[in-house]
Amino acid sequence: MAVGLSAPQSILPVQGVRLASCYSGIKVKSNLDDLVLIEIDPEANIAGVFTTNKFCAAPVTVARQHLHSSSKIRYLLINSGNANAGTGDQGMATSIQSCEAIAQLTGTQTEQVLPFSTGVIGQQLAVNKIEAAIPGLLAKLDRNNWMQAAKGIMTTDTLPKAVSRQVTIDGESVTISGICKGSGMIKPDMATMLAYVATDAEIDSEILADLLKKAVDQSFNSITVDGDTSTNDACVLIASGTSGIKIDASQQAFVEALNDVFKRLAQSIIRDGEGATKFIEIAVNSAASSKDARELAYTIAHSPLVKTALFASDANWGRILAAIGRAPVEDLIIDKIDLYIGKTCLIKGGLPDPDYTEAKGQMEMSQQDIVIRVDLNVGDDSAQIWTTDLSFEYVKINAEYRS
Amino acid sequence: MAVGLSAPQSILPVQGVRLASCYSGIKVKSNLDDLVLIEIDPEANIAGVFTTNKFCAAPVTVARQHLHSSSKIRYLLINSGNANAGTGDQGMATSIQSCEAIAQLTGTQTEQVLPFSTGVIGQQLAVNKIEAAIPGLLAKLDRNNWMQAAKGIMTTDTLPKAVSRQVTIDGESVTISGICKGSGMIKPDMATMLAYVATDAEIDSEILADLLKKAVDQSFNSITVDGDTSTNDACVLIASGTSGIKIDASQQAFVEALNDVFKRLAQSIIRDGEGATKFIEIAVNSAASSKDARELAYTIAHSPLVKTALFASDANWGRILAAIGRAPVEDLIIDKIDLYIGKTCLIKGGLPDPDYTEAKGQMEMSQQDIVIRVDLNVGDDSAQIWTTDLSFEYVKINAEYRS
Repeated sequence: MAVGLSAPQSILPVQGVRLASCYSGIKVKSNLDDLVLIEIDPEANIAGVFTTNKFCAAPVTVARQHLHSSSKIRYLLINSGNANAGTGDQGMATSIQSCEAIAQLTGTQTEQVLPFSTGVIGQQLAVNKIEAAIPGLLAKLDRNNWMQAAKGIMTTDTLPKAVSRQVTIDGESVTISGICKGSGMIKPDMATMLAYVATDAEIDSEILADLLKKAVDQSFNSITVDGDTSTNDACVLIASGTSGIKIDASQQAFVEALNDVFKRLAQSIIRDGEGATKFIEIAVNSAASSKDARELAYTIAHSPLVKTALFASDANWGRILAAIGRAPVEDLIIDKIDLYIGKTCLIKGGLPDPDYTEAKGQMEMSQQDIVIRVDLNVGDDSAQIWTTDLSFEYVKINAEYRS
Repeated sequence: MAVGLSAPQSILPVQGVRLASCYSGIKVKSNLDDLVLIEIDPEANIAGVFTTNKFCAAPVTVARQHLHSSSKIRYLLINSGNANAGTGDQGMATSIQSCEAIAQLTGTQTEQVLPFSTGVIGQQLAVNKIEAAIPGLLAKLDRNNWMQAAKGIMTTDTLPKAVSRQVTIDGESVTISGICKGSGMIKPDMATMLAYVATDAEIDSEILADLLKKAVDQSFNSITVDGDTSTNDACVLIASGTSGIKIDASQQAFVEALNDVFKRLAQSIIRDGEGATKFIEIAVNSAASSKDARELAYTIAHSPLVKTALFASDANWGRILAAIGRAPVEDLIIDKIDLYIGKTCLIKGGLPDPDYTEAKGQMEMSQQDIVIRVDLNVGDDSAQIWTTDLSFEYVKINAEYRS
């Protein structure tokens, strides 16, 4: 069902980062890999962002605490098949116990391990299965295991998701590789968007955190399938520093490559979105503020009426204008609004464009990748987000027929 | 498809209010009535509320202006089949012209007529058809034509919607009758929620406006199908005063009856919601503010994942808790939250209730009418809203298969 997405051909290794994946028995309906370990160079820096959902999972709480401790993070432990959410004190204990298991076998501190979980909500995590699998994982750690890790973190994803780029800085090559998972923005039965990106560049902790925040704003925070945020969402950026090339925010080529990796990873989640038959970009231009632009873009993206029209390839501009009209936007002058689908103008100055024809609209809407552009013509700010249509398949997947 | 809704058996006439309905040729796909005229006693008071959508239709702008003029409103003219929205200056002229046509034939002022339109967006309204039909409508005016009017304002509604009540004030009988239409909260191709409620009680203008606002808050502003608000929504309350019984806000029996009429009308729209297979009440209790309670109720009601779970009769509490966790609510303590479906407790203090079983959840979710109750246990405010599930049929209706 993925829209214009295929499995990645290869993922470049990043020196200072080793990975391993195995089946530990957490996934009960398949024997696909469900446990991934990522080992990070002792000199590496790491930054993370986590879900804002107040009903967050135990591993999110533990990972936040460990990340904010003064210890250097050395290991990321990710299980798929169980979200360890809605599991109370026992879930917290389980999550910490899995970190302890790594620490004991590697001579590190528990705080140097970050736990991540994705999968079913409300069931206790079988930590004994994780403990049993860890020695094998440690033995398998290898810098060439990115693809296995990309597969090991999957739940309802139909394809593994990974992006690599190399960029030349002062004649030297720097690598950025990332993997992610997620199919709806949330599927609390099979919860979570997770992303892990690593580079061999050397980046100070504060700069790294800032780079991560900006990259996430333009990528994982600019996508939506159904407006739901997960209890387990997490995104981590690792700078191993093994290339010896120092990066700060002024290195435009690196920043662009990093943002591109994040954007392509985020878009791969949308392209593999639940029931998606279309990949939709919504661009709002000339808004009075970037808040206005984003609010408007998300109001359009979340409108079930707009989404079903996209599914039907129906250039139903009335639905888009009605969504615009109800959006929580401060500066909105209907008479100034221009609306385009692809290259075709539907609305000029708030009224149907005289040159518009149903045939033109139909042609644009029949594409697989569609750009909806709204020019508010009241300011200089803009936003760009990505979403899917709303199909029968979305309802079917999420209605989970028990028959 | 309507959920527990049947056509009204009878609608009580209200002295001082006469109605007429006919087919004028605006509806092109059927010859069902598409034009309704309501005549109001010269002594009557009237109050109205309109859509907050900034992309509002021409008749909404005209009706607002006329209502705020100093003239007594004498006629309401409602056409179905064309929303007169996205029609620019010509649409405004058309709407005013239809009021002029009534004024000329009845010896009233143009400002004494309120226009309403519902139907297709972006097409000019054939005002000549309306003008041609008006003499016939005037001749047919009768206080017993409520049912015809309820049918004449329908677009995609599968059933006419009407509620009547009588209440005894100081030994005298006062009547309240109302009609409404609407199937999605919005369907911009067939836009609009419209409601007209009349009573023969005598009510001062300011009190009437206040009663209307409060009744609408607990009824039409407490329902949602898909979160979309229409470009044409309008709700009008008429007090003809012909019963000679004076009412103010202290008359609790009257206020309760009025609110009940509004609530039942609003619920009838949800029961006839697009693709609805369930009627869902979402009650949020013990919130820190009524804003918190409403925001939380709407976040649950709009979650596609909750709605698809309801369609599937799947007691998927993870989805409800995840929606609660991301709701824009200031005072939320996960550990205090209790969650019920019907009489069954799913979550107690933020954790799965030990007495909960899948069988109990399944039993509650298999009902046609379902109450989801969230107790936040942090304050004294509450909210109660009504919504539908998200079904294949919803997608089908709104994807408008052209085949």
